[in-house]
Amino acid sequence: VSTPSSPPNTPELWFTERDLEQNVGFSVRIRRHLHSEQSPLQRIDIYDTYAHGRMMTLDGLVMATERDEFIYHEMMAHVPLFSHPDPKQMLIIGGGDGGTLREVLRHPRVARCVMVEIDRAVVEASRRFLPTLASGLDDARAEILFEDGISYVQNAADGAFDVILIDCTDPVGPAEGLFQLPFYRQCLRVLGADGILCQQTESPLYMPHLIRDVHAALATAGFEITRSNQAHCVSYPSGWWSFTLGSKALDPACDFRREDAAKRGFATKYYNERLHAGCFMLPTMVSELIASASSADRENESCA
Amino acid sequence: VSTPSSPPNTPELWFTERDLEQNVGFSVRIRRHLHSEQSPLQRIDIYDTYAHGRMMTLDGLVMATERDEFIYHEMMAHVPLFSHPDPKQMLIIGGGDGGTLREVLRHPRVARCVMVEIDRAVVEASRRFLPTLASGLDDARAEILFEDGISYVQNAADGAFDVILIDCTDPVGPAEGLFQLPFYRQCLRVLGADGILCQQTESPLYMPHLIRDVHAALATAGFEITRSNQAHCVSYPSGWWSFTLGSKALDPACDFRREDAAKRGFATKYYNERLHAGCFMLPTMVSELIASASSADRENESCA
Repeated sequence: VSTPSSPPNTPELWFTERDLEQNVGFSVRIRRHLHSEQSPLQRIDIYDTYAHGRMMTLDGLVMATERDEFIYHEMMAHVPLFSHPDPKQMLIIGGGDGGTLREVLRHPRVARCVMVEIDRAVVEASRRFLPTLASGLDDARAEILFEDGISYVQNAADGAFDVILIDCTDPVGPAEGLFQLPFYRQCLRVLGADGILCQQTESPLYMPHLIRDVHAALATAGFEITRSNQAHCVSYPSGWWSFTLGSKALDPACDFRREDAAKRGFATKYYNERLHAGCFMLPTMVSELIASASSADRENESCA
Repeated sequence: VSTPSSPPNTPELWFTERDLEQNVGFSVRIRRHLHSEQSPLQRIDIYDTYAHGRMMTLDGLVMATERDEFIYHEMMAHVPLFSHPDPKQMLIIGGGDGGTLREVLRHPRVARCVMVEIDRAVVEASRRFLPTLASGLDDARAEILFEDGISYVQNAADGAFDVILIDCTDPVGPAEGLFQLPFYRQCLRVLGADGILCQQTESPLYMPHLIRDVHAALATAGFEITRSNQAHCVSYPSGWWSFTLGSKALDPACDFRREDAAKRGFATKYYNERLHAGCFMLPTMVSELIASASSADRENESCA
């Protein structure tokens, strides 16, 4: 029995993403469930959260929250773009929420950015509910295609792109092929002479083997240099995230356009030219993983 | 009604730490609740988890899990110890689980490490349930005192210590005074000429003001150089953690013993000499926070 002075019971709605392989969970309190739909490919939900602004989930897994999405998207875009000497022709595989595209288009050198998203419904949901992420979708330099990224790259011309960003879901189901050798071989082919690829490679704590496997596959595909960096992606499992880059010529950790990054002329909340160098200075356990995938004389961290 | 082929319902026990200010939660599935006690100061629980090994909570907040504790403890100990030119006399405030002490004692230069933990029951629980953390508690160089850290420092002799590590709980309740100017003034006094202090300063995303306030307080107390670094502390709120250092003479980001760190002679899973440099290369939002606490001409990140 509640006393007169106690507040009435307020129902609380919490969303929890349970990682059943890891037996851990991430929860956010929900103000309102704004949208839910089943597309031909997946279930799409949009929530208004108390702490993280609006949030998109696909099949119950958090893809982006307004509060921390800047970290993932800035790292996915600016590290490879400031590592390429002159990025003009861009390709994004996945990235349906638009956040990576938004960051890519901040670079005035970019002449064209093709985004190949397999699920049109994700882009539509983002346009409607996540306008701060979707803001680049109508840019004249953006070309949005709704098709399978693997087929698109297979059919693209040799050397058509300067940078390829693989902004995909976990390496199971539809995205699995995006983490594999045949796809990376095609990426190498469609990249120009200084071409760089960047792939999100999940949590170094919960999926360490993935970083090792992607390094090995990129090297086998013919990428001259392979590197990983790390960032704090708060709403993804463990909050500790990695990105793995394959480069045909220049080393993204050492030979990036530091001056241009320092005078970038647009605001960033996470990325900057010092962090670009620092994010490649990896914890011992991650360095050792990468070393185990590389030939023994290949240095994976230091710059000359 | 379950069909004959479906497995029997298995009860699942989940622990969730809900941060009610942030309206977020971190959950881990529990195999067994091993221990629970109310000490005069706080409730202490030990769980056996599926994903993170054994876990200690204080008043329901995760203090350490066997799977990821190495990150916090290596960063708390090795960054300041490799920044001081010759750390011999060490002081830990808090740190009852023993993890920081364990890492400090890996340095052969350390002659003595005083650990001042306010709650004897935390140390006893760690000895009993977390032997891999507690392994240094019986070392001949360790001196474990059960008393209030603020009073201890107040009564300590001038210049008695080389490094002070403040390994405490959140800045509310008993630990609040450990984040404040009067305590930092006393720390400055009991540190030797090259003295360095390191304080855990919570999540840059969820408690940004704390980093700024600690910088300002350390500078006001008289520390010549103040710096923050970041790490991935997976089982703490947001998984994104910061440590703030005050130094009387040398810059921990630039003037650390790099050669010694590279040839450290003991295994680390997170810390290494490259990461030592990289962890001070901060995201833009954190640099801006620190700049807002410092005089305008004070550089908070670059090394000459």
